[in-house]
Amino acid sequence: METLKTEIYALGAKARQAAVRMAALSAVDKNSMLRAMAAALRSEAPVILAANAIDVEAAKAKSMNAAFVDRLTLTADRLEAMACGLEDLVGLKDPVGQVLGGWKGAQDIEITKVRVPFGVIGMIYEARPNVTADAAGICFKTGNAVILRGSGEAKASNLAVVKALRQAIRQQEGPEDAVQLLEDTSREAALEFMRMNRYLDLLIPRGGAGLIQTVVREATVPVIETGIGNCHIYVDAAADQQMALDILLNAKTQRIGVCNAAESLLVHREIAAQFLPMAGAALAAKGVEMRACPESRTYLPQSSAATEEDYGAEFLDMIISIKVVENLDEAIEHINTYGTRHSEAIITKDYGAARQFTGRIDAAVVLVNASTRFTDGGMFGFGAEIGISTQKLHARGPMGLEEMTTIKYIVQGDGQIRK
Amino acid sequence: METLKTEIYALGAKARQAAVRMAALSAVDKNSMLRAMAAALRSEAPVILAANAIDVEAAKAKSMNAAFVDRLTLTADRLEAMACGLEDLVGLKDPVGQVLGGWKGAQDIEITKVRVPFGVIGMIYEARPNVTADAAGICFKTGNAVILRGSGEAKASNLAVVKALRQAIRQQEGPEDAVQLLEDTSREAALEFMRMNRYLDLLIPRGGAGLIQTVVREATVPVIETGIGNCHIYVDAAADQQMALDILLNAKTQRIGVCNAAESLLVHREIAAQFLPMAGAALAAKGVEMRACPESRTYLPQSSAATEEDYGAEFLDMIISIKVVENLDEAIEHINTYGTRHSEAIITKDYGAARQFTGRIDAAVVLVNASTRFTDGGMFGFGAEIGISTQKLHARGPMGLEEMTTIKYIVQGDGQIRK
Repeated sequence: METLKTEIYALGAKARQAAVRMAALSAVDKNSMLRAMAAALRSEAPVILAANAIDVEAAKAKSMNAAFVDRLTLTADRLEAMACGLEDLVGLKDPVGQVLGGWKGAQDIEITKVRVPFGVIGMIYEARPNVTADAAGICFKTGNAVILRGSGEAKASNLAVVKALRQAIRQQEGPEDAVQLLEDTSREAALEFMRMNRYLDLLIPRGGAGLIQTVVREATVPVIETGIGNCHIYVDAAADQQMALDILLNAKTQRIGVCNAAESLLVHREIAAQFLPMAGAALAAKGVEMRACPESRTYLPQSSAATEEDYGAEFLDMIISIKVVENLDEAIEHINTYGTRHSEAIITKDYGAARQFTGRIDAAVVLVNASTRFTDGGMFGFGAEIGISTQKLHARGPMGLEEMTTIKYIVQGDGQIRK
Repeated sequence: METLKTEIYALGAKARQAAVRMAALSAVDKNSMLRAMAAALRSEAPVILAANAIDVEAAKAKSMNAAFVDRLTLTADRLEAMACGLEDLVGLKDPVGQVLGGWKGAQDIEITKVRVPFGVIGMIYEARPNVTADAAGICFKTGNAVILRGSGEAKASNLAVVKALRQAIRQQEGPEDAVQLLEDTSREAALEFMRMNRYLDLLIPRGGAGLIQTVVREATVPVIETGIGNCHIYVDAAADQQMALDILLNAKTQRIGVCNAAESLLVHREIAAQFLPMAGAALAAKGVEMRACPESRTYLPQSSAATEEDYGAEFLDMIISIKVVENLDEAIEHINTYGTRHSEAIITKDYGAARQFTGRIDAAVVLVNASTRFTDGGMFGFGAEIGISTQKLHARGPMGLEEMTTIKYIVQGDGQIRK
């Protein structure tokens, strides 16, 4: 245990040193290095793909399911997309150094509030090697050092990707320890990592509910929770029903495994008899299983009975929970009770209902007449996204470059002492 | 244990309900209630002071030290200051509802970023009954519900204060459960409280290093660490030495028990022979014990030898660690190694040294030619302060009203579905 701790803390100390250098790098230098990192992914493609093949082979031998193997697999196209992702960061404005405000305080001290990098960021994620390059790039662009803790199933891939990225940084005379991989993928190592407050300024878990809950429970380092989404579509009495149907189908079925997919449908009683049979037929045609409240079921012959758990579930599957509500108040209360504060949508033509809903729903993103699928850094125009925060501390909703920075106050005086 | 959990979760559920009502209150209504809360502290003064006398008596019987008893004690003047603190909040701008930005995203969705209350905030603090009213007021002003967990030694005082505040809210037809006290002051109850993620959006510990470290270690709720300050004064070769001396004495001795007091002095070698004898005499005259490096000691006959622990210590006492440094680089490295990232000051007339220091020091507040004692919500002009954050997540440095809020994105569309 002590050896383990020594090894992980050594990574931390190196990251801290690198963070000091990263914070001092100019935007121009960081951009040159990002371009070199992209080039390295391309030139090392054969090595990275060969390493990935080992991981994929092993996953298949362990009979992991097809979705798992798909997320784990790198192809020439996917690797090219990772390289392009790094190049895209070059064009984005560097948030570091931005002056957020300035004023005179007591006794004429001059206060300036400046955006600075966090320092050292830890990422814990699942068997998706593309996240390795994406996270490294975003942290690098924002002047942070990152320690990546990917999953054991992607170890060979992650090692190859990180090796290429570090080599590129070194060749540009940058601090290669700004990108490090925690090679020990044991649970013990992960626990030490989550508790390395001395070196980690921030920890971001990215993955399924189990991973995120473990990190929230075990970490002592400040954590930003990401991405558990039990998102609702509420179809108001005053909805354009065709619009509601289009949005429902998009939000539920366009991509089922993502956190901004809809998991629950609420329908105002006044229009239930008209809307639900239409929605039920359309959902059934798409192969969506419906778990519905007793009242809904009178209009949905295809449905089964919803349980209390169904209302709280993030299915990430072709399943939806459905409930008829008495009025807007019941819809809001239901969502604030069962939602995960991710993304919640109302479909309505009524001005007052839209205002009530956006005002009273407690969620990162509240949408009117738009699909929950729009909760995304790309859709928001952030250019890059490291995850979607469902906690309220620091960052909420899609997190881009600015969210990977903190602030520092600079106070300038002429010898002021406090009276 | 289960009964305990049930009781604490019942507080949480009531706070959540109250938070919904708080978020919808207008600034005018919150201000009326804050005025009523101030009036209640005045009208209930005899009851509150009598309750406090019980706590103070018990503390004396347990032979608690004088500083502890002083912090615990309420007087008519202190109670009046608490009432005035609530009234001062009335005049401050309500941050809730502020629009922080807005733009068009993909497919012309309209995105607005709005400031909203956190929801339910937990405060854990020590035996200082004035914090009960201060924290309740700041949380109330910003539309949050708060659950206060004070220390057992202040229980009678806290009960009396909270009773008065709740009564005032109720009389104004506000949600009295916006201010609740966790009456069970056992360690077990505190642990359950820190892990009540279902109901607590944020937890703020305020107190000594032991309390804060316990919360950081044990909490699963998002935490903002506050106020451990091992603050340095670095006297550069190019310092105005009289200014350096004035600032040093102010920072070290004006109030010793506070987090923005200086705990360590670094002196550039070039001026050590001139500055240190003068500083040593002045510190000794104020009764400050000096723990110094070998080189410093040649100029400081009054000093003892500093240990490694001394350089990292927050003394909160008439003690200071002292070290001669070779140059600015060594000063910066020493501070980034031993500091707690609270407040760090350089005294210099040199433009480049000031820029290097403010740029490279990793701390919430970096000061040039001003006392570290200026790190304070009042001095910064925030009007109210709930603590000083030494972590980088969400808020850093003095935290005023804005820091007690989070954001929400509102997306408005015309039926957009994601392509």
